[in-house]
Amino acid sequence: MSGGMHRDFEAAMSFLNEGDDYLVVSHVQPDGDAISSTLAAAWLLDRLGKRVVLANQDPVPDRLRFLSGSERILSLDSLAPDLRFKRIVAVDCADFKRIGQLSERFAEGAELLNIDHHPTNDAYGVCNLIVPEAAATAQILFELIAASGHALDAAAAELLYTGLLTDTGGFRYSNTDTRVMQTAARLLEAGADGYRIADRLLETMTLPQLKLLRLGLNRMEFRFDDRVCSMLITPEDMAEIGAAPEDLEGLVNYARNVEGVEAGVLLKGLRDGSVKASLRSGGTLDVAAIASAFGGGGHIRAAGCRLEDDVQIEALLSAIGEALEPR
Amino acid sequence: MSGGMHRDFEAAMSFLNEGDDYLVVSHVQPDGDAISSTLAAAWLLDRLGKRVVLANQDPVPDRLRFLSGSERILSLDSLAPDLRFKRIVAVDCADFKRIGQLSERFAEGAELLNIDHHPTNDAYGVCNLIVPEAAATAQILFELIAASGHALDAAAAELLYTGLLTDTGGFRYSNTDTRVMQTAARLLEAGADGYRIADRLLETMTLPQLKLLRLGLNRMEFRFDDRVCSMLITPEDMAEIGAAPEDLEGLVNYARNVEGVEAGVLLKGLRDGSVKASLRSGGTLDVAAIASAFGGGGHIRAAGCRLEDDVQIEALLSAIGEALEPR
Ligand SMILES: [Mn+2]
Ligand SMILES: [Mn+2]
Repeated sequence: MSGGMHRDFEAAMSFLNEGDDYLVVSHVQPDGDAISSTLAAAWLLDRLGKRVVLANQDPVPDRLRFLSGSERILSLDSLAPDLRFKRIVAVDCADFKRIGQLSERFAEGAELLNIDHHPTNDAYGVCNLIVPEAAATAQILFELIAASGHALDAAAAELLYTGLLTDTGGFRYSNTDTRVMQTAARLLEAGADGYRIADRLLETMTLPQLKLLRLGLNRMEFRFDDRVCSMLITPEDMAEIGAAPEDLEGLVNYARNVEGVEAGVLLKGLRDGSVKASLRSGGTLDVAAIASAFGGGGHIRAAGCRLEDDVQIEALLSAIGEALEPR
Repeated sequence: MSGGMHRDFEAAMSFLNEGDDYLVVSHVQPDGDAISSTLAAAWLLDRLGKRVVLANQDPVPDRLRFLSGSERILSLDSLAPDLRFKRIVAVDCADFKRIGQLSERFAEGAELLNIDHHPTNDAYGVCNLIVPEAAATAQILFELIAASGHALDAAAAELLYTGLLTDTGGFRYSNTDTRVMQTAARLLEAGADGYRIADRLLETMTLPQLKLLRLGLNRMEFRFDDRVCSMLITPEDMAEIGAAPEDLEGLVNYARNVEGVEAGVLLKGLRDGSVKASLRSGGTLDVAAIASAFGGGGHIRAAGCRLEDDVQIEALLSAIGEALEPR
């Protein structure tokens, strides 16, 4: 475990101070914390007078493009073919593989600063700033910026607020602790427009998201005395609605959140006939244990696995039913 | 306006200290802040060694019954017929009328402490603690308890967190300011289980709520280049679903939150053939101005009015269309 061994803010600042050129990268299929942390790390490197390139294997999701500076994050294709990076800052990546194809652009002997909050992080950097109890990588960057002595401006505050907000599910998950709220207070004070960020990221629904929600609710199936609720979305549904995979984000929570439901399941049919299952529990059921029996994994409350066919779907739902505590 | 004139925490503490018997009351159709503030005021009076009766015209909504002490809040009928109260603490009531029928139980010459955050509060008490910039009455009670010198325990922290959470829409509304977040941090530190509260109040949906949401989404109608979205729910729908009026809470936001929609409208048919319209805007449109043209009122972003028939419904929707900024 990384624990206290890898939380040297001074060493991280030295890494950022010592070079001239940096690449900041995050994980494939970036989420709010990944993009915010990328931009916040760049904000700090800008203040330190460094040259910075921001790049990611996958594009910035549309809904995060309102973040100032997000247009600076390049895709893999738009990097000059010969460009190689020697000093890298990786944010919110639990392991080296999460960086994806962008790691092909690291120079031989490249040095990497690994800033992350995932407890499973295996300290793959030459320098590691891993704070597993931080609710978001943005929380760690908040503290790194504080350690740097640079005062937050409204732009940085907006970025960090976004990371905190998204990784805590809008200050609702159990990782919403005293430190998160203290930090949020400081960020609002520094000029973050919390209402605007929450409204755009958590309230606003695109038309495809709305149509998926409507379809999902109409497709809900209840089993085992209404203790399990599942929804199936087919590739044809996705095409008809014009939905992107990211539009499904959060849909499974509607199944999980029905009163009395202990497990919510979203079954997303893929083009090859297989099915991606997302499992959510209220905490009484360990869905990671169930998912791992099907070659998947995750946490107690959120897990996933891939299923080959209808037989496996039924097997998964049966396994969930068997795992319920007898009443 | 009440402003700075009525925010004397010491005077409020004197009011609470000087008597022996108190009634704590809030407004009709109580919301999360009303119930939380009632219970938090009682918590403080308990600490001060006072005899306290809690009562409200309307019952505690089911979803708030998990709050410890909520069973202490009596309904009007369950009060002994002759009982009259001389010292009253009213919380979260913008005006005296909001107390409803419970005011019939106030003794002649009764003295009332008015604790509230509504900017329109007209200082109807003998003592008034009105803090219009507070996001919730629970925020004022947090400060009153701090002024009392009594240390928060987990039970009080849970109550105050609930009031803050509900009146800020889960820390999403524009009233979510630095002070709210600082207070939330202190409440979590004092033992409030923020996750549990948010999960129960903001995430969990009862079956009637789920069915209403599904119906609402299926009934959505878009007008004026998809800038206005309305949903109609009939009394027959409510009966078939077995829904209570409070189950409709929040539904109109789904209309308002569709990307590109500037006004969301929920039309709730009543048994007498009239319709209760709830209007929500993203802020570009002043729905209070529209509602007031139909005898209703509210705020820029949230308003309501009552309509007599289909002709008036069409008139309201037309009025909204006309109020949209030309593109
Ligand atoms: Mn993260
Ligand atoms: Mn209130």
